[in-house]
Amino acid sequence: MYLRYQTSRLVQWHDTDAAGIAHFTAFFRYMEEAEHELLRARGLSVSMQREGEHLSWPRVSVRCDYSSPVKFEDEVDVLVRIGRIGKRSITYAFDFACRGREVAHGEITAVCCRITEQGLPESIDIPEWVLDRLKGNGES
Amino acid sequence: MYLRYQTSRLVQWHDTDAAGIAHFTAFFRYMEEAEHELLRARGLSVSMQREGEHLSWPRVSVRCDYSSPVKFEDEVDVLVRIGRIGKRSITYAFDFACRGREVAHGEITAVCCRITEQGLPESIDIPEWVLDRLKGNGES
Amino acid sequence: MYLRYQTSRLVQWHDTDAAGIAHFTAFFRYMEEAEHELLRARGLSVSMQREGEHLSWPRVSVRCDYSSPVKFEDEVDVLVRIGRIGKRSITYAFDFACRGREVAHGEITAVCCRITEQGLPESIDIPEWVLDRLKGNGES
Amino acid sequence: MYLRYQTSRLVQWHDTDAAGIAHFTAFFRYMEEAEHELLRARGLSVSMQREGEHLSWPRVSVRCDYSSPVKFEDEVDVLVRIGRIGKRSITYAFDFACRGREVAHGEITAVCCRITEQGLPESIDIPEWVLDRLKGNGES
Repeated sequence: MYLRYQTSRLVQWHDTDAAGIAHFTAFFRYMEEAEHELLRARGLSVSMQREGEHLSWPRVSVRCDYSSPVKFEDEVDVLVRIGRIGKRSITYAFDFACRGREVAHGEITAVCCRITEQGLPESIDIPEWVLDRLKGNGES
Repeated sequence: MYLRYQTSRLVQWHDTDAAGIAHFTAFFRYMEEAEHELLRARGLSVSMQREGEHLSWPRVSVRCDYSSPVKFEDEVDVLVRIGRIGKRSITYAFDFACRGREVAHGEITAVCCRITEQGLPESIDIPEWVLDRLKGNGES
Repeated sequence: MYLRYQTSRLVQWHDTDAAGIAHFTAFFRYMEEAEHELLRARGLSVSMQREGEHLSWPRVSVRCDYSSPVKFEDEVDVLVRIGRIGKRSITYAFDFACRGREVAHGEITAVCCRITEQGLPESIDIPEWVLDRLKGNGES
Repeated sequence: MYLRYQTSRLVQWHDTDAAGIAHFTAFFRYMEEAEHELLRARGLSVSMQREGEHLSWPRVSVRCDYSSPVKFEDEVDVLVRIGRIGKRSITYAFDFACRGREVAHGEITAVCCRITEQGLPESIDIPEWVLDRLKGNGES
């Protein structure tokens, strides 16, 4: 049973656009922030040093489907679930709700990489100690 | 044969992140800018007045797959194709390349809406005059 | 004695740039968010309806001086003070600190406006009931 | 006589906010983009390698004063002038206009730094070869 993590975001003024609603890109910032919050809650980080290695998680695929707009100062509930853990990648699923109504659903697939001496990401198998932290039992 | 439109973007400093590459959200800004450029090239706009109606195109689904990173001051070629025109929606496909290598592929599905007197979007059939402008013959 | 308000922000990945630090524009988002948080703490909003009027606070001048960089996942303490209340404008001052060291100082001057029927901002004297809420006695 | 450089920006949808105008932070992106465009026009970059040194220009002070709002798809003319060249810093001044009316004025002061082996910026005197390129004679 993979980790679930609940957080929320208030729609900021700079998130809105001239249609008077949150711009569609705001949801990707909320997703990234929630993913990183989940990682921190498990003692991890999206960019971390460990045993002389620099681990990072570049995204290879992201998507978002929108069902209802949100406005300035709306409170958006964000439920993150780890939908799938592959050998080298993790897919996070995000359910967004506002006052009980669904507003959007998103996904991010990130690949586990070590940063080489040349500063380039190289995909690697997800280390055991990372998996141990992510396979929580129940809500955090 | 639907419209194809070619444009480009230079990766700006504010597009980059601490990994030294363009942040994944930058590609959604490039997509939106290219979509709107295509519309303008056809005498349209993503938010336009016509015969007392205010037409707008909220997005219902967006995605992007990343195959290779781009860096500050890289020139990114953007090819937009109208992939599908439905009764009420348009799906745009975006191919991103940098110095000849593919870097990303994205999609945006936008729904044709009129803005009601209450300022809310209401989906409508895509008007004929819009379709006429989008069904170009060949590259613009 | 005008209001003081204390909040904090975590530097997000999308706030950083290729120099590995928070991009200078991130501080303006932090300022705006802190200003709006202060207003909400006093039962106000930067965009609010009252007695049939729509009040808004467009900014006329903003600035920020940077003394030290901040990085991803740094906790930034933000102290907002209302530095000056004019007849029609408010100047907010922002002190940013990270682990006890000063990192930046900013200012925003916003003008009290009502939105006309044409949707345009028109500057007005700050209403008494707004002043009453902003002239707190001590920290909130 | 220091360099002057003229460019323009189209207000993008993602630049706008719920007041229907360009968000105040958009102007800082326009400034940064125009500064970097000016540097490129002179064979420079805000982040460049030369003789084994990595030069960079972190900003220490930025400001913007707004006189009139701009909207989606407005064309904004940007005139950059190098206002002052100090021993270790450059101050750029930016005049923004839209259809002939002034809309904003901004300033950025950036400090010449070399990046140390630890990845930290260390201020240095502006090299002669940089000064030579910036002291253009007339408009570029």
